[in-house]
Amino acid sequence: LTGLIACMIDIAVEKLAGYKYLAVKQNIEKYTELGGLSISLILWAVLNSAFVMLGSLAVAFLEPIAAGSGIPQIKCFLNGVKIPRVVRLKTLVIKVFGVICSVAGGLAVGKEGPMIHSGAVVAAGVSQGRSTSLKKDFKIFEYFRRDTEKRDFVSAGAAAGVSAAFGAPVGGVLFSLEEGASFWNQLLTWRIFFASMVSTFTLNFFLSIYHGKPGQLSSPGLINFGRFDSDVSSVFIVFRGVLGALFNIINYWLTIFRIRYIHRPCLQVMEAMLVAAVTATVSFAMIYFSNDCQPLGQDNTEEYPLQLFCADGEYNSMATAFFNTPERSVRSLFHNPPGTYNPVTLGVFTLAYFALAVWTYGLTVSAGVFIPSLLIGAAWGRLFGILLSFIIWADPGKYALIGAAAQLGGIVRMTLSLTVILVEATGNVTYGFPIMLVLMTAKIVGDYFIEGRSRIPGLQSVPFLHWDAPPTSHWLTAREVMSSPVTCFNRVEKVGRIVDVLSNTSTNHNVLIKSKTCLASSRLSQRRLQLKDFRDAYPRFPPIQSIHVSQDERECMMDLTEFMNPTPYTVPQETSLPRVFKLFRALGLRHLVVVDNENRVVGLVTRKDLARYHVGKDGLEELHLAQT
Amino acid sequence: LTGLIACMIDIAVEKLAGYKYLAVKQNIEKYTELGGLSISLILWAVLNSAFVMLGSLAVAFLEPIAAGSGIPQIKCFLNGVKIPRVVRLKTLVIKVFGVICSVAGGLAVGKEGPMIHSGAVVAAGVSQGRSTSLKKDFKIFEYFRRDTEKRDFVSAGAAAGVSAAFGAPVGGVLFSLEEGASFWNQLLTWRIFFASMVSTFTLNFFLSIYHGKPGQLSSPGLINFGRFDSDVSSVFIVFRGVLGALFNIINYWLTIFRIRYIHRPCLQVMEAMLVAAVTATVSFAMIYFSNDCQPLGQDNTEEYPLQLFCADGEYNSMATAFFNTPERSVRSLFHNPPGTYNPVTLGVFTLAYFALAVWTYGLTVSAGVFIPSLLIGAAWGRLFGILLSFIIWADPGKYALIGAAAQLGGIVRMTLSLTVILVEATGNVTYGFPIMLVLMTAKIVGDYFIEGRSRIPGLQSVPFLHWDAPPTSHWLTAREVMSSPVTCFNRVEKVGRIVDVLSNTSTNHNVLIKSKTCLASSRLSQRRLQLKDFRDAYPRFPPIQSIHVSQDERECMMDLTEFMNPTPYTVPQETSLPRVFKLFRALGLRHLVVVDNENRVVGLVTRKDLARYHVGKDGLEELHLAQT
Repeated sequence: LTGLIACMIDIAVEKLAGYKYLAVKQNIEKYTELGGLSISLILWAVLNSAFVMLGSLAVAFLEPIAAGSGIPQIKCFLNGVKIPRVVRLKTLVIKVFGVICSVAGGLAVGKEGPMIHSGAVVAAGVSQGRSTSLKKDFKIFEYFRRDTEKRDFVSAGAAAGVSAAFGAPVGGVLFSLEEGASFWNQLLTWRIFFASMVSTFTLNFFLSIYHGKPGQLSSPGLINFGRFDSDVSSVFIVFRGVLGALFNIINYWLTIFRIRYIHRPCLQVMEAMLVAAVTATVSFAMIYFSNDCQPLGQDNTEEYPLQLFCADGEYNSMATAFFNTPERSVRSLFHNPPGTYNPVTLGVFTLAYFALAVWTYGLTVSAGVFIPSLLIGAAWGRLFGILLSFIIWADPGKYALIGAAAQLGGIVRMTLSLTVILVEATGNVTYGFPIMLVLMTAKIVGDYFIEGRSRIPGLQSVPFLHWDAPPTSHWLTAREVMSSPVTCFNRVEKVGRIVDVLSNTSTNHNVLIKSKTCLASSRLSQRRLQLKDFRDAYPRFPPIQSIHVSQDERECMMDLTEFMNPTPYTVPQETSLPRVFKLFRALGLRHLVVVDNENRVVGLVTRKDLARYHVGKDGLEELHLAQT
Repeated sequence: LTGLIACMIDIAVEKLAGYKYLAVKQNIEKYTELGGLSISLILWAVLNSAFVMLGSLAVAFLEPIAAGSGIPQIKCFLNGVKIPRVVRLKTLVIKVFGVICSVAGGLAVGKEGPMIHSGAVVAAGVSQGRSTSLKKDFKIFEYFRRDTEKRDFVSAGAAAGVSAAFGAPVGGVLFSLEEGASFWNQLLTWRIFFASMVSTFTLNFFLSIYHGKPGQLSSPGLINFGRFDSDVSSVFIVFRGVLGALFNIINYWLTIFRIRYIHRPCLQVMEAMLVAAVTATVSFAMIYFSNDCQPLGQDNTEEYPLQLFCADGEYNSMATAFFNTPERSVRSLFHNPPGTYNPVTLGVFTLAYFALAVWTYGLTVSAGVFIPSLLIGAAWGRLFGILLSFIIWADPGKYALIGAAAQLGGIVRMTLSLTVILVEATGNVTYGFPIMLVLMTAKIVGDYFIEGRSRIPGLQSVPFLHWDAPPTSHWLTAREVMSSPVTCFNRVEKVGRIVDVLSNTSTNHNVLIKSKTCLASSRLSQRRLQLKDFRDAYPRFPPIQSIHVSQDERECMMDLTEFMNPTPYTVPQETSLPRVFKLFRALGLRHLVVVDNENRVVGLVTRKDLARYHVGKDGLEELHLAQT
């Protein structure tokens, strides 16, 4: 299904963008002779804004969680943090629609990031055998209605999404492992890999049919880098982490600005439309004022060569960069022969596109940041290659690849899976080493200036567990970290006490009392309550307030043995924080019971307790997380 | 270093095999006209036997652990099982020498498997900063002289070996993860990946210099499949697990036969030489009796085309398969155009080579089973493709690839990393899906007949932990599994008691008493004993018998606090076996303390206790493992 969705998005975007560019091109050609190109500009801006308006309206009013790429949300979900409505069918529909609109609307965004979210929703939906959005329960897969099972499915879905987006099944598996599955489970990994493979194969198969070449499976992902030869002798390392960090800093300010001032949906839609119009205007101005004409070769790969003010048989080179979907622009930057681009054109393009991309990221539209990063990096890298080729011989296309990797690494910072994704997209293992070096450099340089994109969830005080305990935390023990006192229930407990406790504190574990299964004077009164009752209610348990318990019922006894884990994982009070951390990560825990020397419960460590500690400027700091 | 070793092996084998084939070819050409080809046969057989004798002598008399591919040993090591002398420098030297000899000697073996062992030895050696074989301590990296650190290094080394052997860095990482690191540690994985990348890049770099094309990095691994185009429409699935299983069954019998009768080193050398001579004879006979002549094209890639009895301008096609290093033969089978091979030739070749490979595997030589498997599979697959092409159009080269994958999957059974390795070696992600399906089928079919190659360590009663607890083991609890009673020491203990306990049972944890650090009447007498003392002695602690303790010293008290873990991982007695199993795998444990409700130690679960249980024909069975 993920492969099919990717296929559908690709075809829809291609069709819509095709119509748009054709209309604008004809209009420009008409008015180039007549004079009055402002009409073309207005047409272009209106078309862009219209597309973006549709997408932004849907996102802002129907499902705000569908905004952005969805990757931070999926990361949180895999990390064990619940985010409401993130894997609903409705979110998926809005997301797909929003992505098609924003890419077709010419925004500086990509359609790859949202595929990861889409894949996760598909997996979560299929595994549950029912849909809340459709209010339908197919009564299948009831076994999977648990947090752990659902998380495994979402892992596989996200991997399938990566796989479909980049044609990188192994990269997808590594992405899921890096972000979510902390415990290397052979069987699960194999299933995730299977999902990834099927996803990219499906996309490949249907896209090849769509392109009229069935069997010629040549598009394993939404973005294809094309073939690179193995000669990497001309590749040097470009330090680009700085620009990535700059992107993050500006975007961080913008995000804070947006959270403060642009919180009403209609304002958000207006901003998105404004950006779309500005994008069209900037692009138009760039094309208009550039006089970089290139000869129209016979093996020309441009789909919409714009002649504009160029001589016959020539086309405007700036237009190839702006007047195109970003995927195509990236590929031209990688593979067009040396001499295709004028350095000044490229430089201006890089700056303009950088500004646009920074502004665009964070708008209330469904959109990814991969492709804009790649494009900026590729332009910058190619520029560097061209300048270098004045001194020594160099193939600018390869610098474009390295630049793209560096820019992406500076913005996204998932080094291991990113390397594999890029190597797989390049289709040549020889580039693995330079790409890895560049990504490491970009990460180090970028980290020096600001923490990466993946930290943005920190804005919302999400308890995001890192990979290792903070370096100086070994002197902290479980006793200091744990929450206490802990409210304990006995195996057989009075209903009255349970109701009191539940009313006081948390409000979502109340299915037991709803069934009113009492043990009147330690005798099993009605039917036995089973785990099935949990599954049917999952994941929305009724709040305690909605259950009425009479005074008689309060005196009943309730046997909780069935729902207890007789042998939970426990640690002594003196256990050090790194050890507790390792248990959490390795076993994927959410709670860990702390006991004293006589094995009595003295506290409970939760993810939030662990996420509180991080290394700041003055050594170990304790964060104050929101109590949600 | 691993990349350089791979490079050296490759060049040495190519040179030696080149001289050998040139000599034999000239001899054959001379005697084809004169008559008396039996002299050529004898020359060939003698050359082969001589090479194999050298390698076999070194392995049998100097370091028997260097026999075979070393992969099972490395798997055991990563699994936490100690095997003596497996990561010594001497083993590496013998291994490299043995591989060169056996491959140059024309045995049906590959040089890829041993690379994994070599990489592991390099990593283990470098990380320790000293060598037992050389009796030299560089006084560096003392921090790494611990089991866990050494294991991490060996993981990375094995990955680097895979990477150098197949040009598959990601496959190498997955191999290490599948076999060893149970806990997905971000930092460790990233380091393993770095090692893999550097290894393949080094190999690539130096081989490209050797081939006179610096910068043209086109040989990332010892075996290169060459480029495949993306058209997979002609690929169907070939069921080949059966043949892989057959290989294993016959080889299992042979192994048992060898253990019983051929246990003296000189007999082992004789057998290896016999196999080498038989290989030469069979090859010669096959070439001699085949009359499959093919025209010598101008773009011919054969290095040693044998004319023999063919007309001028033609060459003997059977000779291309036998008169060549196996790597080249595999590549010819993949890429030579349709019509290159006669089906009868291929069929006979497959059978003959299969018999030779089965016999060869398990000889006392350093050798891998990858390449022979690939070659048999490729021949078989190509044969199938040729037969199919009589009915519908089919590209036999692609069937060769699929057949190779199936054969390898049937014999080796490491599905996930194997898929990635093959995809990386193919250099085209489009083949991922068919390769995966074939490997899954091969594994399922093969498992139905006999458990795979990786189970061979079971022959030696090694406590090899599987990935999951046996399916029906949830009713077993820690109480039933654990070893008890446990001998406990108090924090401060009498030296006499310690000596008595150590003399009675295990014999390799005695460094404490050696230093004779006593606490005379609970007062610290001499210098404090530190962890450093452990590190210096690692990994060969002195046996208790070698330490003399006087009667006075026996009365001393010794403070063991320094060497105790105050918060070990513990489980209650009622914990189920799968839960214990998960803790072992996730945290990489070797021992787990079992406590009762009052937190008193009642038993200890070791890896051996867990490995005892496996699912047999009548449900859960308890194995009796050797007490080593």
